Amino acid sequence: MPDSFSKRVTLLGSTGSIGTQALDVIRSQPGKFTVTALSAHSNAELLIQQAQEFRPAAVVIGDDAKYATVKAALASQPETEVLAGAAALADVAGRDDADVVLTAMVGYAGLLPTVRAIRAGKTIALANKETLVVAGQLITELVKDHGVGLYPVDSEHSAIFQCLVGEEQNPIEKIILTASGGPFRGRTREQLAQVTKAQALKHPNWDMGAKITIDSASLMNKGLEVIEAKWLFGLRNDQIDVVVHPQSIIHSLVQFEDGSLKAQLGLPDMKLPIQYALGYPQRLANTFPRFSFLDYPQLTFEQADTSAFRNLALAFEAMGRAGNAPCILNAANEIAVAAFLRDEIGFLQMSEVVETSLARVSYLAAPSLDDYVETDRETRRIAQELVGHS
Amino acid sequence: MPDSFSKRVTLLGSTGSIGTQALDVIRSQPGKFTVTALSAHSNAELLIQQAQEFRPAAVVIGDDAKYATVKAALASQPETEVLAGAAALADVAGRDDADVVLTAMVGYAGLLPTVRAIRAGKTIALANKETLVVAGQLITELVKDHGVGLYPVDSEHSAIFQCLVGEEQNPIEKIILTASGGPFRGRTREQLAQVTKAQALKHPNWDMGAKITIDSASLMNKGLEVIEAKWLFGLRNDQIDVVVHPQSIIHSLVQFEDGSLKAQLGLPDMKLPIQYALGYPQRLANTFPRFSFLDYPQLTFEQADTSAFRNLALAFEAMGRAGNAPCILNAANEIAVAAFLRDEIGFLQMSEVVETSLARVSYLAAPSLDDYVETDRETRRIAQELVGHS
Repeated sequence: MPDSFSKRVTLLGSTGSIGTQALDVIRSQPGKFTVTALSAHSNAELLIQQAQEFRPAAVVIGDDAKYATVKAALASQPETEVLAGAAALADVAGRDDADVVLTAMVGYAGLLPTVRAIRAGKTIALANKETLVVAGQLITELVKDHGVGLYPVDSEHSAIFQCLVGEEQNPIEKIILTASGGPFRGRTREQLAQVTKAQALKHPNWDMGAKITIDSASLMNKGLEVIEAKWLFGLRNDQIDVVVHPQSIIHSLVQFEDGSLKAQLGLPDMKLPIQYALGYPQRLANTFPRFSFLDYPQLTFEQADTSAFRNLALAFEAMGRAGNAPCILNAANEIAVAAFLRDEIGFLQMSEVVETSLARVSYLAAPSLDDYVETDRETRRIAQELVGHS
Repeated sequence: MPDSFSKRVTLLGSTGSIGTQALDVIRSQPGKFTVTALSAHSNAELLIQQAQEFRPAAVVIGDDAKYATVKAALASQPETEVLAGAAALADVAGRDDADVVLTAMVGYAGLLPTVRAIRAGKTIALANKETLVVAGQLITELVKDHGVGLYPVDSEHSAIFQCLVGEEQNPIEKIILTASGGPFRGRTREQLAQVTKAQALKHPNWDMGAKITIDSASLMNKGLEVIEAKWLFGLRNDQIDVVVHPQSIIHSLVQFEDGSLKAQLGLPDMKLPIQYALGYPQRLANTFPRFSFLDYPQLTFEQADTSAFRNLALAFEAMGRAGNAPCILNAANEIAVAAFLRDEIGFLQMSEVVETSLARVSYLAAPSLDDYVETDRETRRIAQELVGHS
């Protein structure tokens, strides 16, 4: 690695699981990264701490009501501009002082700032899979038009991205996304009807935020990743397989047209794919714990049970329908997961909310960005009714 | 793949296991390859058939006594020059009409023709691991001086080579060579003392020639591969690990300085690495059978037992001593395997012949090519005595 390695990073969603781990990575690589901006949805306290440590040029707090708190706390730090609200976030995402924008917001909220960063020609480290799930065609066209790099942070997509390095001339035959299967692997629908929020929040391998942990338990996360992969790697729907691999060591695989498979492996630790996306194409030496086969003498693989875990089948279905169907899938799922986390609906009802929303919301074959915004709004309204709110 | 793909291949050792499979690959890719020359040690009958099918510019039969037979059989094929003997082989290896020379001779015999091909500036597809085991430092310097490509055909090294594509700027932390463990995995020394030639010739996964099949059963093959890998990938001795993986699906792995591992996987079929070396950097679409996790729901891993399988420890030891020690290891092993295949010595005695030869043959720290030739000769004489010939 040349000594001259240096990147300026804007981190959108800095107080979440990916955001804090990204700052761990930056902290562990002294002199390699500068933080230019940080944003948080509502965790003002942590955002203030991060700003005091990394001294960025700007911080954005999404929740306007917390602006005064953040502003006051950073009064003695004049180099850090304090901003609030969605418009400020989009503005910061597109500023010139960053080399790479890490988009780590949760859910649909990541879409518009990511669009803004792409339009500003920023390299994107994409941790917000919903951006591609909701508007994959539009985003990939935008990325192409603006000639920007879009590097995945999701461990599965990072694995595939790593396997594709140097293979530009070799077409992909298919990809195989691995899935841990979550905490309820092997359960029947009858058993799934009984699972609790607390059980669903205990992922066997990965330590993540609440939304993605529930999505992992329901296999919606894998469904969203299937759609994300389609757009990231320019695949036909029939080129994407899913295999359940409970140990989460093989992070995913690519099969080329000669039948050869390449895989990326490692301990389940998001810091590695985060660092890879921030450092790409350079791998930065680090002291993260190393994988050893002595600790994993068996790696196992099985088919996903899409009749018990309907979400994965619904995601493939939405991908097949295309247009705004994945946007409906995502919005309905966000409402369903929030309701499940409030104990308002059961585990299996999450799929029902998604399925009914897909049937009810108006289908659009070629949506614009405004259409996506409207589809998201309409779906949330319908899904809220389905979970008992109005 | 551009339509213009076309390579001219010289195949040294065309009647052996790798040679015949290379011709299968070439046959399965019509219009992509031209065969410029073929050589065989002594199987005149098959060489004639191959020459009649592929109509090369030259064929070489190693055994002078068979020259007349080959010449007569190809009398009606004036475009094919018929030659015999070691000097002719070296001459053909360096001719201008080939883009790539596949060196698939068995054992030490591969060294001199490979040197000739490198000096002639040919791209080498290296299936003869002994070339690098015996004279790795000399060969890698020669490859560098002549600016030629050296692409491995051994499945493990091909796996690592595939994983390194596009990673030129990223140093290797270590490599992990996988080993099937052979037919006697798990046996004690007492049990190994009883095994027969017929048992040793039945490899669980790979269909190969007799020499390499015995080497696989004794783990000497893995030892030779460790030394080969050192030179191919420019590694320190402590950067090479071996793990036993009985299913032979993960063909080997690379760990980079960020802790990320990349692996190449597939069914155990030599046609894939042969095709990769011949086509590199292009992967040619084919219809070889595809790997599926449904057929391999468990991949397992264990440490190699170097106290039962002494050869692997001896290879690491020879690599550590460097100089002509790997050359001694290889020559003694060739004699020992031949004696085992003639039922003259038992399975465990093979390691004893190697160990005693390493102790007795004069050590040279910085051998020349002539020194290697002399070390090989001296070792064979001593090892022959040890197996009861003189």
